[in-house]
Amino acid sequence: MNAAVDRSQHGHLVIVGGHEDRENSKEILSRFVELSGGGKATIAVITAASKVPDEMWKRYNAVFTELGARQVIRIDLPDRAAANDPALAGRVRNADGIFMTGGDQKRLLAMIGGTLMDEAMHGALKQRGACIGGTSAGASAMCGHMLADGKADLLPEKGSVSLGAGLGFVQRVVIDQHFSERHRLARLLTIVAQNPYLLGVGIDEDTALVVERGVGIEVIGAGSVTVVDGRAMISNVADIPSGGTPQLIDVRLHLLPAGSSFALPEEVGHPNQLRPDTTRRTPDPLTDFVRNVTKRNPVS
Amino acid sequence: MNAAVDRSQHGHLVIVGGHEDRENSKEILSRFVELSGGGKATIAVITAASKVPDEMWKRYNAVFTELGARQVIRIDLPDRAAANDPALAGRVRNADGIFMTGGDQKRLLAMIGGTLMDEAMHGALKQRGACIGGTSAGASAMCGHMLADGKADLLPEKGSVSLGAGLGFVQRVVIDQHFSERHRLARLLTIVAQNPYLLGVGIDEDTALVVERGVGIEVIGAGSVTVVDGRAMISNVADIPSGGTPQLIDVRLHLLPAGSSFALPEEVGHPNQLRPDTTRRTPDPLTDFVRNVTKRNPVS
Repeated sequence: MNAAVDRSQHGHLVIVGGHEDRENSKEILSRFVELSGGGKATIAVITAASKVPDEMWKRYNAVFTELGARQVIRIDLPDRAAANDPALAGRVRNADGIFMTGGDQKRLLAMIGGTLMDEAMHGALKQRGACIGGTSAGASAMCGHMLADGKADLLPEKGSVSLGAGLGFVQRVVIDQHFSERHRLARLLTIVAQNPYLLGVGIDEDTALVVERGVGIEVIGAGSVTVVDGRAMISNVADIPSGGTPQLIDVRLHLLPAGSSFALPEEVGHPNQLRPDTTRRTPDPLTDFVRNVTKRNPVS
Repeated sequence: MNAAVDRSQHGHLVIVGGHEDRENSKEILSRFVELSGGGKATIAVITAASKVPDEMWKRYNAVFTELGARQVIRIDLPDRAAANDPALAGRVRNADGIFMTGGDQKRLLAMIGGTLMDEAMHGALKQRGACIGGTSAGASAMCGHMLADGKADLLPEKGSVSLGAGLGFVQRVVIDQHFSERHRLARLLTIVAQNPYLLGVGIDEDTALVVERGVGIEVIGAGSVTVVDGRAMISNVADIPSGGTPQLIDVRLHLLPAGSSFALPEEVGHPNQLRPDTTRRTPDPLTDFVRNVTKRNPVS
């Protein structure tokens, strides 16, 4: 087994901000199929976030088939019993790519959180190096601390967001999607103000944060990924009433447009699947972010 | 002459993000009148930014009169000749408050930049401690480097903003207005990406940055002031083509909601006109911002 093959078994995440192109270049979904193994890939589609799962299945079955996946399988999860079905979970554990559609991340977690299906996804990623993809709700659901509810007002507002327990493929970050298009910086700042332990990550539409676990990250698609780091922040959020706008001083903001790619310092120059191949060493202010999202957490 | 009187002669700036309340509490315009001297104040209204100066004059004459100013005078500037009229400039030099309405800051500067009127405004502020107010275009115009043109897209875009020479009441900052309401963070980031010498300041509607020169700042009204500091930023803006989205790493962002007030370290506890009286010492990450906007530049 050579180094490159070994590395591919680290597993990838393709975290998509919603509305990814499915008609033209299909850049993001192509990359997902490729990182799943291309023509050799069996791809499992989880539609449980959506209230129109049939429509979602048709949509992604068509595009993954068109993009050359060997097999596309539907994981229909009408209830938690289905998510605890050993046979269905086994199909996911053996898949090369697992894709979570949009919808509502709370619905998705209510259906699969803590089930055999949840366990099977972690097993596929961590033991077999599968690629996990998710768009919109499916992106938010990847976090350990998941954005559950929040309004997108003009200014941050104490008490206007709530977190829940997500799937935990990435830790110490919270992901929001449709980010620039729906003007969600204020709500990301609200989350970070109240939870400075978490780095806020906003992913634009038709944009993906591609993670090669243990190696580095890449941004692909049409927009940018915004990272908000409140760890050095000075804030009065604990002292103001609910509904108030917190004073926030020294929030660090990073804007990573498509084309950005960073490897962990110790991985620069090693074989990897990030592009460009000459991936830039992660600048110091981004190091913790890249470490958090690439961290190979143990199987949960 | 006691210390308080002396300090009042430092002069104030009331920099308003547009759409300030003129019907209900009138908090911002009240403060402007008060800092101009209240019932003793002669207030000069400069409508030159606007293409409907008559309407602007009626609006602000009514509200400043209602708020108890002793006298409200119209400074009608149909052309640069008027702005170079010594008698008219003399009335501005002797005013206690000078208010610039909204409109287009390029129009305002084209009319008064470098004229006797420009000089008279600086003289009134710096030699007599007058209060200078400006809303919307009148706020942008206060900077040395003034935002002249820019589009408010979802993401920063190289080459999409341009600066011009403003009135220079504040230096090393660039001010944008209607900030949260018009989603202008991306364009402020564009300015800062291309001009990291300048701190970006975004003022919301019905919100004002009140500056007591040499002393400190205060935010009043309904919204917030956002400060963007790119001095420590790592960026590829010089290397990307025009129209591209720059990668920006480690931009410092500060959100100062109404009620925020900070005094320069050496001015904490001294008599001043900021509220609350127990004005908080400026935190280190904000110090340069507060120093820049409160700096008592020489008469230009």
